[in-house]
Amino acid sequence: MTDETVVGEPAAIGSDEPEGHTPSVEVVAIGTELLLGQIVDTNSSWIGEQLAAAGLNSHFQTKVGDNPTRIRSVLELALDRSDAVICCGGLGPTQDDVTREVMAEVMGVELELDEAVAGRIRHMFASRGRTMPDNNLRQAMVPVGASVIAQQPGTAPGLICPLGTEAGSKVIYAVPGVPYEMKEMVTGTIIPDLVARSGRPAVIRSRLLRTWGMSESGLSEMLGPRIEELDEIGNPTLAFLASGVEGLKVRITARAHDETAARAVLDTEEHLLRSLMGDIVFATDGDNMETVVVASLARRGLTIAVAESVTGGYVAGRLCAVAGASEVFRGGVVAYHRDIKRDLLGVQEGPVVTEAAATAMAQGARTILGADIGIATTGVAGPDEAEGRPVGTVCAAIAGLDAAGISRDVAVTMQLPGDRERIRQFATISLLDLLRKRLR
Amino acid sequence: MTDETVVGEPAAIGSDEPEGHTPSVEVVAIGTELLLGQIVDTNSSWIGEQLAAAGLNSHFQTKVGDNPTRIRSVLELALDRSDAVICCGGLGPTQDDVTREVMAEVMGVELELDEAVAGRIRHMFASRGRTMPDNNLRQAMVPVGASVIAQQPGTAPGLICPLGTEAGSKVIYAVPGVPYEMKEMVTGTIIPDLVARSGRPAVIRSRLLRTWGMSESGLSEMLGPRIEELDEIGNPTLAFLASGVEGLKVRITARAHDETAARAVLDTEEHLLRSLMGDIVFATDGDNMETVVVASLARRGLTIAVAESVTGGYVAGRLCAVAGASEVFRGGVVAYHRDIKRDLLGVQEGPVVTEAAATAMAQGARTILGADIGIATTGVAGPDEAEGRPVGTVCAAIAGLDAAGISRDVAVTMQLPGDRERIRQFATISLLDLLRKRLR
Repeated sequence: MTDETVVGEPAAIGSDEPEGHTPSVEVVAIGTELLLGQIVDTNSSWIGEQLAAAGLNSHFQTKVGDNPTRIRSVLELALDRSDAVICCGGLGPTQDDVTREVMAEVMGVELELDEAVAGRIRHMFASRGRTMPDNNLRQAMVPVGASVIAQQPGTAPGLICPLGTEAGSKVIYAVPGVPYEMKEMVTGTIIPDLVARSGRPAVIRSRLLRTWGMSESGLSEMLGPRIEELDEIGNPTLAFLASGVEGLKVRITARAHDETAARAVLDTEEHLLRSLMGDIVFATDGDNMETVVVASLARRGLTIAVAESVTGGYVAGRLCAVAGASEVFRGGVVAYHRDIKRDLLGVQEGPVVTEAAATAMAQGARTILGADIGIATTGVAGPDEAEGRPVGTVCAAIAGLDAAGISRDVAVTMQLPGDRERIRQFATISLLDLLRKRLR
Repeated sequence: MTDETVVGEPAAIGSDEPEGHTPSVEVVAIGTELLLGQIVDTNSSWIGEQLAAAGLNSHFQTKVGDNPTRIRSVLELALDRSDAVICCGGLGPTQDDVTREVMAEVMGVELELDEAVAGRIRHMFASRGRTMPDNNLRQAMVPVGASVIAQQPGTAPGLICPLGTEAGSKVIYAVPGVPYEMKEMVTGTIIPDLVARSGRPAVIRSRLLRTWGMSESGLSEMLGPRIEELDEIGNPTLAFLASGVEGLKVRITARAHDETAARAVLDTEEHLLRSLMGDIVFATDGDNMETVVVASLARRGLTIAVAESVTGGYVAGRLCAVAGASEVFRGGVVAYHRDIKRDLLGVQEGPVVTEAAATAMAQGARTILGADIGIATTGVAGPDEAEGRPVGTVCAAIAGLDAAGISRDVAVTMQLPGDRERIRQFATISLLDLLRKRLR
């Protein structure tokens, strides 16, 4: 794909706003450990996603080590070809953290102590009963003419460094490399500041619809006509984001003059997309498959138990990951050895990679763990086939689920792709999705 | 840290080789989806790690979209400031894959059809019973003067594009963005080619020692004197790599004139480091905690069963991830609700976040699942405290393990840091490590 064809995203936003200018923003990640591959630079990717969602252009991202000369050369190049730069990392308290000094050099100014920042850092140490090492005062040094970003969740303050005084002036933002500190500053200050500078509507909001069970090409086909319409209209915009075994996200991004109007655009579009996509949409925004399933069980006052063979604990592990799972989750049996399927869960002698065995496991778990619903997996994760069934064969079952209180079981057989780990993860989410649909 | 102080790695290698020149190599990742954050660029990190391990310098990494003008500007800049460039992505069969065209432009040559490559691509399609779409012939177009990388696991060939004809000539390598294709080419051709160009010994080998249970500063202190010695000697070199909850890796990198000599350096250094670090070293290279534990159980002919509360299936899930786990792993009980701990595992009434409860769970699992050894976790993952014990309290126990066949149990209480997910993962690996040490 080219910069201009990604599901109509960055190009589309702003194209009907001739009065505004879409600023181009570069991201510079600073840290030798990034170049050495000791840490994967996920910060730049995350910032890139936020910029795109806000309709801002981003054409280059650079990683550079903790070397003042090289950082300066990268910043000067970035300022030359873009309107703004977000600089990530190198704001720590040690001698190796040189971003502040380089920013001052690029601005052609000195560093000075910001008493307010120094006070905040001292206070942070004091509130944990510790004395601030002198080193940390380095973090309160701010280039003359720069301002400090309001959000400061850690000891490192973020900086806004304007360059030039005219209308066409450029800006460098500096944020710490610690992801949660960086994210608060980017979301809270930098994106709104960039949008304001662009002279376009000030409120940009997005919403994620999470889907499971359809390929990207299938989804493109399903939403094709709507995407073409939106390419014309320009607002909201849609983007697909892949999340591996967790499915595909459809992101709706709306811009408007205020919060209420933006939300109305999102609501209308979500309603339309849901009518097109039906029940492949399983969650919005921060929810995932297990939070949705646990919430759905809790609403109905139902408890659940799990019996696992091929997934070996993954289904139970995901359900327990939800805070408050104890309200609905009774427990599980990992019935890996054939004897345990038989002795503990009551599965009959014979082949165990069958829907009958999966159903018996689900019923067994339900009974011995005292739950309303039992769910189970059995299958072949490899490396070798088993019982004459190929690697990737998985049977999943749900027992005891019925609106009227009458037992009615469901079982399915799937042929899943990938290696051992991927088959087990696929089987896990497939079973949870099966349950989600039965609970509707 | 600065480029020069990362546990003495890249600077140290080559410093005693005045006859050679350490080439600096830039990585350029191509793809609009990388800028938009739809895919995290893990390729550059991986390549950076390989370059560092081979003692090659790498000062910049850049991401750029699928735009020919911008790609060209990035390549020209990279060639200006570095000796070699590895270009990743944009070698697919569609019109949007423009890396080949840009390479030809930068070299100032035309593209021509490489019949051998075209034949290989046709053969790949034919062997899957499919006809090659005409589009794929684009992938056989090679800049005049470039050579094709021998490894070609997919349809996209990798390219070696020399620039200039003199001794000081530079080179661009192009590899596909598909990670396994890229990795084969980088390992098989590019790193050896770069090392050969540097005029230094041709064989570079590394080995990872995986440690668990010690902080980076603790490890630095423990290995400090040896690191200082190696900074003088220059070969082998050491680097620490953090792997989150999985512990810290110590990478030994040796260079030598042949394979045997390199292995001898690694063996000697591993022996020395193990004598310094003792039993915090749990695995080498591709092994992890669960493969080590499963192999250790298999060697002794022992079977295992798991009872989990706070970890909720994670311990069983990790053990089952090992191919061949069925030889030793009987199964598990996720005893999340208090009733199940009591009814199924025989835990007495009363508090369950105790070493006594953990031990009873381990014994119960061992008994009902018919295993030689039972292991168990119970604790408080949060968000709220329980039984008056703070979030992060975890009790772990092992039952039935004794060299002489006599039952001798062990239980520990830990206070683990982090959020719900991290506490559960930490508890899981802590229990596995406890078992590993008991099995020694």
